[in-house]
Amino acid sequence: MTDHLTVVYGASELVVGPEGPTGIEVVADGAFAAVDGTVVAVGPTQDVLAEFPAENADVAIDATGKTVLPGFVDPHTHALFAGDRSDEFVAKLRGATYEEILSDGGGILRTVDAVREATDDELVTNLTGHLDAMLENGTTTVEIKSGYGLDTETELRMLAAIDEAGSRHAVDVVPTFMGAHAVPRGMDTDEYTEHVVSEQLPAVADQGIATFCDVFCERGVFSADQSRRILEAGLEYGLTPKVHADEFAAIGGTDVAADVGAASADHLLHTDADGRARLVDAGVTPVVLPGTAFGLGADYADARAFLDSGHEVALATDFNPNCFVRTMGLVATLASVGMRMTPDEVVRGCTSAAANALDLSDGRGTLAPESTADAVVLDVPSIAHLPYRFDTNPVSTVLKSGVVVHA
Amino acid sequence: MTDHLTVVYGASELVVGPEGPTGIEVVADGAFAAVDGTVVAVGPTQDVLAEFPAENADVAIDATGKTVLPGFVDPHTHALFAGDRSDEFVAKLRGATYEEILSDGGGILRTVDAVREATDDELVTNLTGHLDAMLENGTTTVEIKSGYGLDTETELRMLAAIDEAGSRHAVDVVPTFMGAHAVPRGMDTDEYTEHVVSEQLPAVADQGIATFCDVFCERGVFSADQSRRILEAGLEYGLTPKVHADEFAAIGGTDVAADVGAASADHLLHTDADGRARLVDAGVTPVVLPGTAFGLGADYADARAFLDSGHEVALATDFNPNCFVRTMGLVATLASVGMRMTPDEVVRGCTSAAANALDLSDGRGTLAPESTADAVVLDVPSIAHLPYRFDTNPVSTVLKSGVVVHA
Ligand SMILES: [Zn+2]
Ligand SMILES: [Zn+2]
Repeated sequence: MTDHLTVVYGASELVVGPEGPTGIEVVADGAFAAVDGTVVAVGPTQDVLAEFPAENADVAIDATGKTVLPGFVDPHTHALFAGDRSDEFVAKLRGATYEEILSDGGGILRTVDAVREATDDELVTNLTGHLDAMLENGTTTVEIKSGYGLDTETELRMLAAIDEAGSRHAVDVVPTFMGAHAVPRGMDTDEYTEHVVSEQLPAVADQGIATFCDVFCERGVFSADQSRRILEAGLEYGLTPKVHADEFAAIGGTDVAADVGAASADHLLHTDADGRARLVDAGVTPVVLPGTAFGLGADYADARAFLDSGHEVALATDFNPNCFVRTMGLVATLASVGMRMTPDEVVRGCTSAAANALDLSDGRGTLAPESTADAVVLDVPSIAHLPYRFDTNPVSTVLKSGVVVHA
Repeated sequence: MTDHLTVVYGASELVVGPEGPTGIEVVADGAFAAVDGTVVAVGPTQDVLAEFPAENADVAIDATGKTVLPGFVDPHTHALFAGDRSDEFVAKLRGATYEEILSDGGGILRTVDAVREATDDELVTNLTGHLDAMLENGTTTVEIKSGYGLDTETELRMLAAIDEAGSRHAVDVVPTFMGAHAVPRGMDTDEYTEHVVSEQLPAVADQGIATFCDVFCERGVFSADQSRRILEAGLEYGLTPKVHADEFAAIGGTDVAADVGAASADHLLHTDADGRARLVDAGVTPVVLPGTAFGLGADYADARAFLDSGHEVALATDFNPNCFVRTMGLVATLASVGMRMTPDEVVRGCTSAAANALDLSDGRGTLAPESTADAVVLDVPSIAHLPYRFDTNPVSTVLKSGVVVHA
């Protein structure tokens, strides 16, 4: 059996990977070659083609006038759900308060009801449609959280559906257990915390699908102590912590994330300088979610504070029924317009920084040698056009492990 | 020769057209039929199919689970240009002021230089690419302004390129002469106003392509008196006025628009209650451009003030090198999130109100009987999903005069 050779060449700009604390390495007139799905050469087109001629390749893509990036990594989504909450979006436009929407049966518990009622097939079908949309828009790896079950059976069904849809799809899926996403009706938060720790976590560990354990550490949801208890219990089962921290108020989520060694702390709208320092000192990747802020009409996280002190920031869609965005391209624009992130910082945020938020160590999010050859070809002349255009999908080709999976 | 029959049926929601002062008429499980490109029936699927069975149709589209709208009308763009100004977007992120960008050779006069240097073929090719992107995103009629020539020869070349690209493309193009877009180097505003009136306008009228004459009535650009002089001169040549009014300051543009009977007044970020009343009393359609405000990080126009007093508002992309958006879907989201327009108001703004801003009287922007059968099928279950999703392109099929032009 001969090797499978992929060559992508002639890109007006090609992103190799991270460079310095927050920058990226870009090659003009760039190319990469991959053998059996792993990058073996990257650099100027002339050099790469001299060693790996396009005419010998199984897949040869002329990217002249186009821009080539590592495939996008989306490190924070709630992409598996059921039901329709567009009416709440409309109610909010008409001036309804969060409390009014809740008292009309809206909010997260409505999605919980819909997910509990959905069949396994419906869950897989819903998620597959969203994975298709993500792939068309250049995402090759996506994290997906459970957390619309809030009981052991449905949390396990969600993780199984995430695993099933992911195993059939070109997009790589990273499953996160998030039983502590909200508190179900009929329990107080202490009772439910105990339930997550003593019933859900052992069953999730037994099931063996989830990689991460995430908690919504927030005023009125899970306290810092409750969050710490759940994440430490998860660690004992081998689940790496993640934390939804400081979205509406700073109640200690960043301390928890630093103390338990979380892979990421996400949202960070109310994180102060101390909180930022604790996170970066502990090696926790900050993840900001500009789509959420945009959709809510809220202020954006202070991504610049991390970047200006020399720390990378990951970007994610936070795709969920309250934030209907599956495209990293629009997140890129929101990051620039809303948080003044430069194209370099944005590209790093959607690729290698996002891979760091998922503890991926196989070079995903880069096209350096030995990396997985996940790449996206954009029909734009430079990376600046990724945030500059808030527009139609610029993706012309998506490669997963050196194979064209969308064109 | 037999008639050409088009039937689109089963839509979970189908928009017929405007209803009441600012609403729309929506049919559940809706259908329409068109003969030779003109709508002949619209209503519940059962009724339409009884008269026009799908099996007799030349084009039959099952829109089950989808939403059908009149094709989007984009009534304000500067879609014909050359060159690349993404670096100015990046400079602004890095904190450069408008003055610094200008002193570095940036801004509108840089696009003027690029357009003057471009060949006719380049201009047509550039615009055709943009029309392709618009069509894929559901736009079936688009207004395009000249105004990057600022001399007679180049203004005429722009209008000829707009006409040429439009005549070859499925998207209908409405050409606007906007010699008064900026003041070229080497002339003061009075001199240039005189030049527009005495040289450009007669040549444009002689060329016979432009429908409208537009002016950038703004502090530091064209005064109200200069704007009035140009628009009145245009009227004598049969060009209907349009006005860029109150974008950065209210210097009288709305008065001019009302006095000359403009088809539309556009931007309106600084228009007060008196200005709004004068516009609507004079029958001028207000056009708001939320993409421009978003891209600049500026406040949005007060669309609600028009709507709450019972007057429709048209939406447009304002696509130009400073506002790289060609999709009415994203404009819809920005209109809802930024200006609290409801889905009904947004849909009207992208269809029949936009057609009014272009004085179109052939029923474009509606699917009522006798209208041109321009329609878009969205792969979403309701019109609420148009603004609710700030996401990937929801368009599954575009029909122009009853013929599928994109699928
Ligand atoms: Zn989240
Ligand atoms: Zn304009």
